[in-house]
Amino acid sequence: VTDKARVEAFSDGVLAIAITLLVLELRVPDGAELAHGLAHALGQEWSSYAAYLLSFVVIGIMWVNHHAMFARVVRVDRPLLLLNLHLLLWIAVLPFPTALVARFIRHGHEARVAMAVYSGVMTATSVAWLLLWLWITRDARLLHRDIDPRAARASVLRFGAGLVVYALTVVLSFVSPLVALVVHFVIAGYYVFDQLAQPQVASPGPA
Amino acid sequence: VTDKARVEAFSDGVLAIAITLLVLELRVPDGAELAHGLAHALGQEWSSYAAYLLSFVVIGIMWVNHHAMFARVVRVDRPLLLLNLHLLLWIAVLPFPTALVARFIRHGHEARVAMAVYSGVMTATSVAWLLLWLWITRDARLLHRDIDPRAARASVLRFGAGLVVYALTVVLSFVSPLVALVVHFVIAGYYVFDQLAQPQVASPGPA
Amino acid sequence: VTDKARVEAFSDGVLAIAITLLVLELRVPDGAELAHGLAHALGQEWSSYAAYLLSFVVIGIMWVNHHAMFARVVRVDRPLLLLNLHLLLWIAVLPFPTALVARFIRHGHEARVAMAVYSGVMTATSVAWLLLWLWITRDARLLHRDIDPRAARASVLRFGAGLVVYALTVVLSFVSPLVALVVHFVIAGYYVFDQLAQPQVASPGPA
Amino acid sequence: VTDKARVEAFSDGVLAIAITLLVLELRVPDGAELAHGLAHALGQEWSSYAAYLLSFVVIGIMWVNHHAMFARVVRVDRPLLLLNLHLLLWIAVLPFPTALVARFIRHGHEARVAMAVYSGVMTATSVAWLLLWLWITRDARLLHRDIDPRAARASVLRFGAGLVVYALTVVLSFVSPLVALVVHFVIAGYYVFDQLAQPQVASPGPA
Repeated sequence: VTDKARVEAFSDGVLAIAITLLVLELRVPDGAELAHGLAHALGQEWSSYAAYLLSFVVIGIMWVNHHAMFARVVRVDRPLLLLNLHLLLWIAVLPFPTALVARFIRHGHEARVAMAVYSGVMTATSVAWLLLWLWITRDARLLHRDIDPRAARASVLRFGAGLVVYALTVVLSFVSPLVALVVHFVIAGYYVFDQLAQPQVASPGPA
Repeated sequence: VTDKARVEAFSDGVLAIAITLLVLELRVPDGAELAHGLAHALGQEWSSYAAYLLSFVVIGIMWVNHHAMFARVVRVDRPLLLLNLHLLLWIAVLPFPTALVARFIRHGHEARVAMAVYSGVMTATSVAWLLLWLWITRDARLLHRDIDPRAARASVLRFGAGLVVYALTVVLSFVSPLVALVVHFVIAGYYVFDQLAQPQVASPGPA
Repeated sequence: VTDKARVEAFSDGVLAIAITLLVLELRVPDGAELAHGLAHALGQEWSSYAAYLLSFVVIGIMWVNHHAMFARVVRVDRPLLLLNLHLLLWIAVLPFPTALVARFIRHGHEARVAMAVYSGVMTATSVAWLLLWLWITRDARLLHRDIDPRAARASVLRFGAGLVVYALTVVLSFVSPLVALVVHFVIAGYYVFDQLAQPQVASPGPA
Repeated sequence: VTDKARVEAFSDGVLAIAITLLVLELRVPDGAELAHGLAHALGQEWSSYAAYLLSFVVIGIMWVNHHAMFARVVRVDRPLLLLNLHLLLWIAVLPFPTALVARFIRHGHEARVAMAVYSGVMTATSVAWLLLWLWITRDARLLHRDIDPRAARASVLRFGAGLVVYALTVVLSFVSPLVALVVHFVIAGYYVFDQLAQPQVASPGPA
C-alpha cells in the first residue's frame, strides 16, 4: 500500500461516514407532532429532507472531485497530509450546519443565522480545497506528469471563483435564507458539470 | 489504486456504515416501559427487531449485488460515478424509513404511512439500480468483455420487474402494512437466489 | 481488486464501525445525576465502562480472528458471502446488548435479562462463526493450500466448544449476571491466546 | 492483500469513524437556549467547538503518525495486532472525554474533573503508542530495513517525553482546566512538527 493509497482510503472513510451520518438528523416524529397524523408530520419535516439532500449532494460531489484531484497526484508529502486533514475537518463538520438548517430554515431570523453558518462552513471548505490544490500544483514532484500547467492555473482561478460565490451566500443568507438554500443547490449542480469537464482538459488520460 | 477500486471502496464504506448504523435505532427501554419488567419491554419492541433484520438483509444483499455488478465493470466514467452516488443516496437514507416502520408498524393508519414510505424508498432504490445498470450495459467500454449481451438484456428486464414489484408494495402498504412487511422479506429472499444465479449466466468467470 | 479483498474491506468496515459506535453508549451525566459532583456521577457509570471494554475486546478479537480465517481463504463464492453477512449481522447488533448490560447490570432481575440477551447474541455469533468456518473447510477450492486438514478439523471442534460455553453463559446469566459478565471477559481472553496459537498450527506461513 | 494492508485498513476505518463521530457532539440549540436568539445560543456553545477542534486535530495527527509508523513496518505479528487494538481502544473512546470537556469546561470544579478525564485518556493513549513502538523496534523482523537504530531509540525517548507531558496535564487540569485545554492544543501542534521531522531522520525513503 503506497502512502497515496492510504490517504485516499482515510479520506474516503471520512467522506463516506460524514455522508452516511446525515441520516441521523432525520427524526421520527413523536408526541404532539402526530396530532394531524404521520403523513402530515412527515410533510412538516420537508426542510430536513431538503437539508439532507443538499448536504448529500455537496459531500458526494466533493468525493467525486477529491477522487479527480488525487488522480492527478503522484506523491504525497506531509504538508499535503495536513492540508487534506484541514479539508476533512470542514467536510466532517457539515452534518452540524445541516442540522441547523433543517431545524431553523422555517423560523424567521434564526433561519438567517442557520443559513449563514452553513454558508460560512461551505466558504471555509472552499478555502481548504483551494489551499490543497495550490500546494499540489506549486510542486511539480507531487503532480502527475500529464497535467497541462495552464489547465492547472485555470483550475485555481475556478476554485477561487467558487470561493467568492460561497462568500456571497453568507451575505445572501441574511437577505433571504430560502434563496441562499436554492443557490447552494445551484452551485452544487454547477460543480458537477464544471468539475466533470475540467479534469478532462487537464489530463485526458486517467480520469 | 485504480478509479474503479476507489468507487468500490467508497461504496463499501457507505454500505458498511448504513448497515451498521441500523443498530442505533434499537432503543434501550426506560421509565414506564419497564413497568412489566425488561423481558416484557423488549418483547414489545419486536417491530424494531423485524425492521432491523429486514433492512440489514436488504442492504446486505445490495452489497452482494453491488459487488457482482462492479465485477462486470472494467472502466468507470463520470456519469457512472454520479449514478452510483444516486444509488448510495437511497441506500444511505434507508435507516430513516426503517425507524419509521419500527416505531409505527403496530399503530393502525400510521403503520400504512410508515410502510408506504419504506416501500417508496425501496422503489426509488430500485430505479437507481436500473439506471446504473442501464448506463453500464449501454456502453461496451465500461463492461467486462466476458458479458453475454443477451444475459445483460435479460438482467435489465429482471431489474425492471423488481421495480414493478416494489411499486406494488407501496399500494399494498395501504391495504395491509404487515403483509407488505412480509412481502419485503420475500422479495429480499428472491433477490438472494435470483441475483446469485444471474451473474453466473452473464459471466462464468470472475463472480 | 479481487472478490476476496472486497469481502475483507466490507467486513473490516462493519467491524470498525461497530467497535467505534460503542462509544456512543457512554453518556455524559446531566441534571440530578450531578448532585454529588461529576467525579461521583462518572463513578456510578462503571457498568458502562465495563460493557464498553468487554464489547471492544470481543469485537477486536473477532477482527483478529476474521483476519486469520480469511488469510486461509483463497477464493470466495456466494454462500460464503451470505454466511459472512450472517456473521456481520450478529457483530453489528452487539452495541445494543452492550447498552442493555451497561444500563441494567446493577438492577436485580433486569440484570439477568440484560446479561442473558448479551449471552444469547454471543451464542448466535458463535454459531455464525462455526457455519462460516464449516463452509470454508468443507470445500477444498476455498481453502489456502497450506492448511493441514487435521488442524482444520480440530479448529471446528474448538469453535464448537466455544459455542457450548457461550450457550452456558445464557444459563449463568440467570444465576449471577455479574459472574456471567466476568466469564465473558475470561472467554475473550481465552480466545486471544487460543486463536493466536491455532492458525500457526494450521498454517505456519501467512499469519 | 497483505496482513499489513488489512491492519492499516482497519485502523484507518476506526480513526476515520472516531474523527467523524465527533460531530455528533455538536448539539442544535433548542427550547430555552434560544431565548436570546440562535446566534447567541451558538456563541454559548464555544466550548463544544473548541473540544471538537482539539479532538479532530489530535485524532488527525495520530492518523498521520500511525501512517508514518506503519510505513516503517514490514511484517505484522499477533502481539502487534493486539497492541494496535489497544491503541485503537483509547483513540475510539476519545469522543466521550471530548463530550465531557465540551459540556463542563465552563463549570468550576466539574471542569477540573472533565479535563482530568480527557488528560487521563490522552496519557493512556500515549502509553499505548509507546508500547506499540517498543514492540515494533525491539524486533528487527518487523522493522523496515532502512531504519537507523539510533533514530529508533531516540524516537522512543521522544514518545516517553510525550507521555510525561500528558501525565502532567492530568495534574494541571486540577489547577486550571482552561490552561490544560490550551496545553493540549500546544502539544498537538508540537507533535505535528516533531513527528514530521522524526521519520525523515529515521528513514529518508518511504515517508
